[in-house]
Order: sequence, then structure tokens, then C-alpha cells
Amino acid sequence: MTETRNGKGLLIVVSAPSGAGKTSLCQELTRTLPNLTHSISYTTRAPRNGEVNGKDYWFVSVETFEKMVAERAFAEWARVHQNLYGTALATLDDMRNKGKDVILDIDTQGAMQLREKMPDGAYIFILPPSMEILEERLRKRQSDREDEIQRRMAKAREEIAAYSSYDYIVVNEEFQTALAELKAIVTAEKCKVAYINNSWVDTTFLGG
Amino acid sequence: MTETRNGKGLLIVVSAPSGAGKTSLCQELTRTLPNLTHSISYTTRAPRNGEVNGKDYWFVSVETFEKMVAERAFAEWARVHQNLYGTALATLDDMRNKGKDVILDIDTQGAMQLREKMPDGAYIFILPPSMEILEERLRKRQSDREDEIQRRMAKAREEIAAYSSYDYIVVNEEFQTALAELKAIVTAEKCKVAYINNSWVDTTFLGG
Repeated sequence: MTETRNGKGLLIVVSAPSGAGKTSLCQELTRTLPNLTHSISYTTRAPRNGEVNGKDYWFVSVETFEKMVAERAFAEWARVHQNLYGTALATLDDMRNKGKDVILDIDTQGAMQLREKMPDGAYIFILPPSMEILEERLRKRQSDREDEIQRRMAKAREEIAAYSSYDYIVVNEEFQTALAELKAIVTAEKCKVAYINNSWVDTTFLGG
Repeated sequence: MTETRNGKGLLIVVSAPSGAGKTSLCQELTRTLPNLTHSISYTTRAPRNGEVNGKDYWFVSVETFEKMVAERAFAEWARVHQNLYGTALATLDDMRNKGKDVILDIDTQGAMQLREKMPDGAYIFILPPSMEILEERLRKRQSDREDEIQRRMAKAREEIAAYSSYDYIVVNEEFQTALAELKAIVTAEKCKVAYINNSWVDTTFLGG
């Protein structure tokens, strides 16, 4: 018998208001945890310079996308700025069944949609330390006009209001601390009894 | 306003078969996590050399203990080798309300009793890597007679059978890895939305 301790891979879902530092945190997390990878989304938008089909996204036509929606192929999907984006259920299941941990970086609406289909995921919301700091960060990193910043701040407030529907809250005050908390969540989730391979326990300890 | 992010303290409950290394792991965990402390149990057994009342245990008479049982003062209690041991609900509540994280090191029966009263705790089961290694460890560390070792092995099998009632499984194959997993569980539990202070979120982000 070559039973392994761990069963299927984790599903980690991360949401945050724009400016909370989600992208950098998720990138560093997947860089340092080799078993954790981003799922590849489907999109109807055109590839940007250097983007590769099957690596950055699966680039599909509006017709293909809509057919997938009709066939309920998506775990979650959304329209963002005239384009469609979606995560296929099959992509998530395939990766997890191979024992790969998957991370998804989606907005609160997508996350709540996904939660209905995949309640065994770990749903994490990243908060900035305060609204003042969020505004500072938005001003620093973007050359947006004032009305665009105000629009993002209003949107942030709206997203933060959904925080209590998540399992975990990580406050990104200090990058390394927030990263350590995300890693701890991944490690702890791996230890959850739901992720242990029952037949490993049975054969190893219970003589079954 | 001086709202803090974290609300009340955690309750961490650890069970393991004898020989799995629970005591060393819990000691090292409380040594390295200053906010995590053992709760002080009540017992009817006599103090051993050097044991201090109110530090190692609260030493009480059988009458006092039985009165506390009748008054439903205990979160869990058990008879072990003619002596009574119990954890008072008030002790746990007091420590957690002060923001202290509490760790309890109890058997599977006590843990399942406690779970009914305090379902918000993190219930952790520590497994040895295999039954063979458990037996080796029992033989190495004890000068027990063969029948005593066999009794402990049978008891271990019985306790391990309860593993699926816990939230987390930590396999103590390598001490430092198991310790890191326990620390990750504590960190992750602290990030759970249930442990964040709602009024901190409201005042900081939602203008409430």
C-alpha cells in the first residue's frame, strides 16, 4: 500500500478591495508554496502583449463563453469592463484531484457564487489597515483622476461590507506578517480532518 | 476609540494517544507563543512534590469537586485512576474574555464533552506516524511491563478511532514540523472571521 496522508488539494479563494495588496501577496504566496498554483481563467478579452493562451488565460470567443455558461461549466463568472471572465469547475476539480492546491483571486460576488458550489474552500478576505491608508496607496500607485479614486474608495467600502461572509480575515498592514498569516492558513487547512486521507488513517492505525 | 482587531482569546484543545508526543509539543507551543497558556484544572488528587495550588492545579476535596459537578461548573471532567480532574467553564471564559488564548490537553472523551459546550474551539488530534513507531516510543520511554504496553496500545487504537471528530490532525513524525503545524493552526484560528472584533471593522472601514 502506498497511501498518502493528504487527500485532494485545497481551494483557496482570496478577495480584497483594490489597493489592499492582494496581487503581490498572492504572487509571493504561490512563489513560496510550490504546491499552490493559480487556476487559469477563461476570458473573452483579447490577449495583451506577451500573454499566452493556456498559461495566463484561456482566451475564448463570446460564443464559446456563453455556451459554457449555458452548460453550467463555470464555478463563477463575471462581466468586467465589457469582458467576460470565468473559472471552470472542471479546471478546479482536475487540479484538486491531482493533489494540487489552487488559489483563486476573485471579487466578493464571484467568491460568494463559488462558495455555494464549493463550500469546502478556504475563503480569505484581505483588509487594508484603514481606509486612510487604502486611499494613500491608491493615490501613490495610480495616476487616476480624483473621481476614479473616489469610485474605487466607494467600491472598496462596498466590498469590505461583505467581509463577514469569509472564513478568514488577513489585515495587510505589514506585508511579511500578512504573508505569514496566509501561509499559516494554507498549512492549517492542510491539517484539517477533511483533507486527511481516511484510508491512510485506516490502514496505518486501525488495521482496516 | 481604541478598538483592537482581535476579540476574545482562542480555545485550543489537544488530544493524542499516550506516546504521540503531545506533552512536549504543547509545552514548546506555550513556551514560544506568549499569549497561549494552559488552563489550570481542578483535581482531587494530592499535590505531588513541588506542585503549587493555583499554578499546577487547583487542589480541592472530593466534596468540593462533586458540588462543582452538581452545579455544572465544569466544561469537562473525568475520573482517572481514582482521582477526579476537571476544567471549570469559568476559568476558560475568564481567560478568553481577557484575550488570552487557552490550551487544554485532554483525552478524547473530555474533548467531545467540551465540544458540546464550546463548539468554537479548535480541536486538534495528534497522531504518531504509525502504530509501530508508537509502540517503539512507549517501549523506549517507559519501563512498563509488557501487559501495560499492550494496554496502552489498545487504548491508543481506541482513541485514534475518534480522530474524525476533531477539526485538525497533526502527525508527529518530525517534532519541528508538527510544532510548526500547531503554530500555523493557532495563527490561522486567530485570522478566523469569528475572532475578529466586528466593531473594529465597523469603526475602521464602514464608518459605523
